[in-house]
Amino acid sequence: MCAQPKYIEIFEWIKQQIDIGNLKPGERMYSEKELVELFSVSRQTVRHAISKLEYEDIVVKRRGSGTYIRKADSGAEPSGSMQIAVVTTYVDDYIFPRIIQEIQHTIAREGYMMQLMFTNNSVEKEREILNQLIEENNVAGMIIEPTKSALPNPNIPLFEKLACRGVPVVFLNSYYPQLEVPRVVLDDILAGKLATKYLISKGHKNIGAIFKSDDGQGLRRYYGYVEALLEAGLSFRESHIIWVSTEDISRMKQDEDRYLNRMNGNTAYVCYNDKIAYELMEIYSSHHISVPEDISIVGIDDADIAKRSRVMLTTMKNPVRELGREAAAIILNMIRGEEAAMSYNAVPVLIERDSVASKIS
Amino acid sequence: MCAQPKYIEIFEWIKQQIDIGNLKPGERMYSEKELVELFSVSRQTVRHAISKLEYEDIVVKRRGSGTYIRKADSGAEPSGSMQIAVVTTYVDDYIFPRIIQEIQHTIAREGYMMQLMFTNNSVEKEREILNQLIEENNVAGMIIEPTKSALPNPNIPLFEKLACRGVPVVFLNSYYPQLEVPRVVLDDILAGKLATKYLISKGHKNIGAIFKSDDGQGLRRYYGYVEALLEAGLSFRESHIIWVSTEDISRMKQDEDRYLNRMNGNTAYVCYNDKIAYELMEIYSSHHISVPEDISIVGIDDADIAKRSRVMLTTMKNPVRELGREAAAIILNMIRGEEAAMSYNAVPVLIERDSVASKIS
Repeated sequence: MCAQPKYIEIFEWIKQQIDIGNLKPGERMYSEKELVELFSVSRQTVRHAISKLEYEDIVVKRRGSGTYIRKADSGAEPSGSMQIAVVTTYVDDYIFPRIIQEIQHTIAREGYMMQLMFTNNSVEKEREILNQLIEENNVAGMIIEPTKSALPNPNIPLFEKLACRGVPVVFLNSYYPQLEVPRVVLDDILAGKLATKYLISKGHKNIGAIFKSDDGQGLRRYYGYVEALLEAGLSFRESHIIWVSTEDISRMKQDEDRYLNRMNGNTAYVCYNDKIAYELMEIYSSHHISVPEDISIVGIDDADIAKRSRVMLTTMKNPVRELGREAAAIILNMIRGEEAAMSYNAVPVLIERDSVASKIS
Repeated sequence: MCAQPKYIEIFEWIKQQIDIGNLKPGERMYSEKELVELFSVSRQTVRHAISKLEYEDIVVKRRGSGTYIRKADSGAEPSGSMQIAVVTTYVDDYIFPRIIQEIQHTIAREGYMMQLMFTNNSVEKEREILNQLIEENNVAGMIIEPTKSALPNPNIPLFEKLACRGVPVVFLNSYYPQLEVPRVVLDDILAGKLATKYLISKGHKNIGAIFKSDDGQGLRRYYGYVEALLEAGLSFRESHIIWVSTEDISRMKQDEDRYLNRMNGNTAYVCYNDKIAYELMEIYSSHHISVPEDISIVGIDDADIAKRSRVMLTTMKNPVRELGREAAAIILNMIRGEEAAMSYNAVPVLIERDSVASKIS
């Protein structure tokens, strides 16, 4: 992962030239042509090296004049920045404000400031943010909720770039399996399993589900659902599982037939999260289908929305404050280089409200 | 993974008794009761051991008389079954008949028979088939197209069970990443990438896509699409990617709003496969949207359907006969124990037909 590309070699050589005094502040740097000849590389590679020198404030380009050495020491050591980047998917009133608050409190106690950014669960937006962080090169660490973590991610090389620079990273809520980075997550398999087991314990046998297909959490919650059904000896009907992607969730009402058509025969639904449970109840309501009389619903997360829905939602509590606190504690440890970073799995807890009816007579 | 169950211990002990001559061909075998006492195990465990001895032709049950040793040497080696299980997702007229034919021809030349089964890409059906194969215990090897390979699979322990019994397995078209099993697949990343690059070369800039979210092929074809866009410096708009699961494909027409709503601004679509491209064209046609005048489409697979659609479909050829042949060759090698099994990646090739219009003026 940390193989040294040619342009890094050139970059390091220039820094060395400055350290030993062959290049002095204010002096003109080697030209592109000179570097091409010195290293027998392409002009593209040389430009890449010069960009990096520029980004790290080691050289400065003057229009129409050339590239000059700025100062002799910058970029040689860690930046000593007191900023921690926190990148979550959303900022809305779902579970995110509580997570962010908790991270903020924990890092502030140690004198760190939070640089907060949002991806909207978009790979392109994540890419922009990572490129920006790499370019600015002034954060001590990063806590990031991965974007669409069930899909192969073209941004992996950017994470590797950060890691090679020694910027510690902690994943929150999910993770990219290729990267060996500490993760602070809900035990999503258990959440899906307990939600399903609860419905089974209430006498439900035909239990449909809606899961998210582009986030790893969705795959893990699905797996817990399947485990619960198989352990109970119930049949596992794939036609009653609806998979949604990030972009589908905001359009559930418009695509309502997709959700209504799959209902037949089910007495209950496990929903990927409370937001989807909420949207599903809205669809049911406009078709005079009553929750929990006609259909029982369990959500996951215990988000604020669980208490604002038509029927107060039975859900699996995701201890988000705890996750925020742990993610912050781990990144602080990593920044200090204090001890081996550890991953953290939080246990979901059932919150019984009004959205499930018992089928036991 | 390969812990020795008690019944295997009993099975091995009987084989040893035959090898050293304590039990001779034609002799009556120990009774269930004797074995229960000898090994201090349950009657169930003993029956399990006897079943295995029977399956492997080491003993024979004579109704009302007891169990007898059949021959002294069989079972010491592999069972000698001349059956190979071939498990594909579908049997319809998509790419499957050609794959199956080719496998059949290749294994028949070596005297093997094909035991053909279909999962309909259902995890439950795959589970049934694996349980049946484990119970019957009479195949020399298995070629299997994994079911919903992008989702965590509750059937993994069943594959491990087969592996522990020494039944060689080859994955076809996709694979379960947890299992170290040879795989014979299309280079799906390249297929997605070349399809997208072709549209870019024709001047398209706003290129939407439909991918399958539950099969690994879908994730890899998506990744190739993203790579092509990023390399061309084009923006990558996630709202224009529609994810479908196996169960959605047969309902595309019913859910047509979902596909029409996402079109706006796109001049072209990359489709996960020719089946989806076909269904999309049907939807467009009923809304008087012309292919390729209004919208260009590229499919993947070069299935029979590509030539039966309203407009002959430009597609990436999946060399399915080659895949069938290679999968058969690898499983035969593994059965013979001849050489280290190898995975195989087939290269897709563009087939230009009529579904893409040039945007270069």
